Amino acid sequence: MTSRRRHRTAKSRPVLEQLAYHQPINRYPLTEIASAQALDAIHEASMRIVEEIGIEFLNPRAEAILLAAGAERIPHSQRLSLPREMLMAALSHAPSAFTLHARNPAHHVRIGDNALAFCSVASAPHATDLAQGRRSGNRQDYQDFLRLSQSFNIIHMLGGYPVEPIDLPAETRHLDCTLDAITLTDKPYHVYSLARQRNLDVIEMTRIALGLSEAQMRDTPGVFTIVNANSPLRYDAPMLDGIIEMATWGQPVVITPFTLAGAMAPVTIAGALAQQNAEALAGIALTQLVRPGAPVVYGGFTSNVDMRSGAPAFGTPEYMKAMQISGQLARRYGVPFRASNVNASNAPDAQATWESVFSLWATVSGGTNMLMHAAGWLEGGLSASFEKFVIDCDLLQMVASYLNPVPVNDAELGLEAIAEVGPGGHFFGTAHTQERFRDAFHAPILSDWRNFETWRDAGAPMTHEAAHRKYLQVLEQYQAPALEPDKLEALQALVRARSTAKS
Amino acid sequence: MTSRRRHRTAKSRPVLEQLAYHQPINRYPLTEIASAQALDAIHEASMRIVEEIGIEFLNPRAEAILLAAGAERIPHSQRLSLPREMLMAALSHAPSAFTLHARNPAHHVRIGDNALAFCSVASAPHATDLAQGRRSGNRQDYQDFLRLSQSFNIIHMLGGYPVEPIDLPAETRHLDCTLDAITLTDKPYHVYSLARQRNLDVIEMTRIALGLSEAQMRDTPGVFTIVNANSPLRYDAPMLDGIIEMATWGQPVVITPFTLAGAMAPVTIAGALAQQNAEALAGIALTQLVRPGAPVVYGGFTSNVDMRSGAPAFGTPEYMKAMQISGQLARRYGVPFRASNVNASNAPDAQATWESVFSLWATVSGGTNMLMHAAGWLEGGLSASFEKFVIDCDLLQMVASYLNPVPVNDAELGLEAIAEVGPGGHFFGTAHTQERFRDAFHAPILSDWRNFETWRDAGAPMTHEAAHRKYLQVLEQYQAPALEPDKLEALQALVRARSTAKS
Repeated sequence: MTSRRRHRTAKSRPVLEQLAYHQPINRYPLTEIASAQALDAIHEASMRIVEEIGIEFLNPRAEAILLAAGAERIPHSQRLSLPREMLMAALSHAPSAFTLHARNPAHHVRIGDNALAFCSVASAPHATDLAQGRRSGNRQDYQDFLRLSQSFNIIHMLGGYPVEPIDLPAETRHLDCTLDAITLTDKPYHVYSLARQRNLDVIEMTRIALGLSEAQMRDTPGVFTIVNANSPLRYDAPMLDGIIEMATWGQPVVITPFTLAGAMAPVTIAGALAQQNAEALAGIALTQLVRPGAPVVYGGFTSNVDMRSGAPAFGTPEYMKAMQISGQLARRYGVPFRASNVNASNAPDAQATWESVFSLWATVSGGTNMLMHAAGWLEGGLSASFEKFVIDCDLLQMVASYLNPVPVNDAELGLEAIAEVGPGGHFFGTAHTQERFRDAFHAPILSDWRNFETWRDAGAPMTHEAAHRKYLQVLEQYQAPALEPDKLEALQALVRARSTAKS
Repeated sequence: MTSRRRHRTAKSRPVLEQLAYHQPINRYPLTEIASAQALDAIHEASMRIVEEIGIEFLNPRAEAILLAAGAERIPHSQRLSLPREMLMAALSHAPSAFTLHARNPAHHVRIGDNALAFCSVASAPHATDLAQGRRSGNRQDYQDFLRLSQSFNIIHMLGGYPVEPIDLPAETRHLDCTLDAITLTDKPYHVYSLARQRNLDVIEMTRIALGLSEAQMRDTPGVFTIVNANSPLRYDAPMLDGIIEMATWGQPVVITPFTLAGAMAPVTIAGALAQQNAEALAGIALTQLVRPGAPVVYGGFTSNVDMRSGAPAFGTPEYMKAMQISGQLARRYGVPFRASNVNASNAPDAQATWESVFSLWATVSGGTNMLMHAAGWLEGGLSASFEKFVIDCDLLQMVASYLNPVPVNDAELGLEAIAEVGPGGHFFGTAHTQERFRDAFHAPILSDWRNFETWRDAGAPMTHEAAHRKYLQVLEQYQAPALEPDKLEALQALVRARSTAKS
């Protein structure tokens, strides 16, 4: 099993003993908690939303595309009614899977089928760690999260800026950040849909990094964007520009309504899902009207608010159920499914961990193809935590090992060893054990399995303290992946030219 | 939904806002990760183990029962060969579900069907909390864990002594401890199978507590025992006496081999499961030979060791897979399935939490009927932790809420509310929300969803600190459940009489 091989250096115990780079494949039966009738009812409700209530598309180009395809303006409103036949016809062109290319071909990522892709935390306004505490996002922390994302094999792609580097000018931030992403990692990455030209800039940088012609680029997914509906029932102009530019260029769009039940969506999970589904399908359909066959992903983010405070709550039982049903919906429409590893805790403590593992339970068993915020999210997304990043990588590795099916054959059943050991014996010395013990079991990164006395005498470290030390060690040993000098030069020239144009 | 109603006192915010007492019902499809072929192969291997390798039963009464039923002594050994026909014939009498009676009829517990029963931590030699640290088990801590087990509605039964009260004389400990269990709680409990007379003493105390005649007691499950195989392939004398006495009295026996892969079982999950299955079926068959139809449970405890240290590892990917396949095996034989909420951490930290939630993921989705050590286990069972107890109750409550299916109907889909709010609006003010918001979402016990600044200004508490405060508050408010004076008197008289006889 290639996934069992660990990365070892010349030293006996490397800083980071981890699984070899691979995408986990989920071969287990998925957990489908909604009946066929319930799923039909949610679908039917979402069809009535797009047809009867309608959705606002605050962008003339998007409106024109939809109207040309058969949408109708709802009188005395900015809303468009989207006939279900038009919607479903458009959806029928969406691919069920695609490959997102990285500049290192070993890091191409499959989105769809039964593969899982884990993205690092994205878009946090703050960075935090145990030593320095919580601070505003900045380029140094941004780069450090990129270095961690490159170092941990279980991270397959960047989900966005792990932390927003607000010390970089907003107008040119996408240029600097994308150059950092390309130079500090060799994994796929994301572009924010904040302005049309920025999408085009990053697509061009990606074309250079991948070494493609313009024509090739149009058929090679290499950078993706997240498009959030401004729920309820509205898509804003820059997001719609993002859909149009990205789909035109054949680059993946992840459509994710932001349907917090009780705030931007009905207080019921069924209602929030119906609204999510309506908004998601509308966005997905638009990508296919722009370019049939354009890579697109169904995003689910439905969670609930804490009704005492109105604050978003994540990793809750409601989130679990919403994500498992969202997976069923995405499969109904034949598109890959995106969910998230979320929590609302203020610290990398037990709460952060249970909210994350409940999220993983629901999203993995619910058939998620692409997991956003898979490592480092804290505080409902307001902070990117260095300690949580390492903890999450450990969780993701455990998920990957869990998804390796148990081999059952005569050698594994080991009847000879059982007969040899007999009643009251011990298996450690048997040939059956000795042949296998090095790689028999998953080796976690942080788990402290020392006995109590040894652990206590070592200072009784809790997990978040071990995670703190580990992230610093990994950063210390980080090495940038090689990049061809001509590509680097071309990228730097583009960044210079575009930055000068802006300033 | 009765499970959504919260227990409220006259005060506006009671110390413990929790779900109403109920047993969660798992109506979701179970996760079956082993193919039918793989399951057949494990079954076949376990049949070859009981037939060809054989098992030691270090108790003449048990041997006599098995030999009379068709077992054969394997020459030059203490092992018996159990023909598969005999084994499967005996197994065919085992009930698929039964009810364990409590002295409070509202706390009877269904074991089997698709109900879940959560047991408190059992058998830890140490107790621990943040303030006093780790100390040897004692009666005060034992009683405090009983008080917590009574106070938290999500705990359905005692799994044993949460912590071993070694300040009580070993000879009469079962009498004092059972009297505590009956007076401090009104939920079902456990008896250790350490000596035949102790089983009989506790059965008699239970008969008194339930107010039954001897004849009635023989048909009323009211106290259960865990019987561990002394793996590999051996049952010790007191455990076999436990099987015989309990089955004779119609009291439930939970047969649980202790098959740590790489130590007491093969280093492979398939091999460890084959051995677990052989040992479990042998024990279950014995209960049915003693008394056909006696209540019995298939216990799975297969996990792995840390191959670096030899220490047991829990809540690992291997444990997850072993438990899900164990559930499939138990269902194959038509008996309820027992698993555990386990972890090997030394502190109630992130590791303890992820190992627990991974355990819950596997055991709940794997169809567990009875979850041992559901609250309070720490350090691979060497400590019972007061903080972990509260954390686990929160996890179990979230599982219970997750298992409440999402209702999907017109009222829940809320199209009128979606139309009313329209694009860019907010749902909080709608009638749809106002009618539902109080009980719309699961309310956790410990989750801290305050914003960062408020949380920081409150001292930045981590979860284990909140759990510490909560357990002390709950103990402070604890009230013992009423017990009829005549029963109490009879029980005290029995304890006095038996204690005098022993001393």
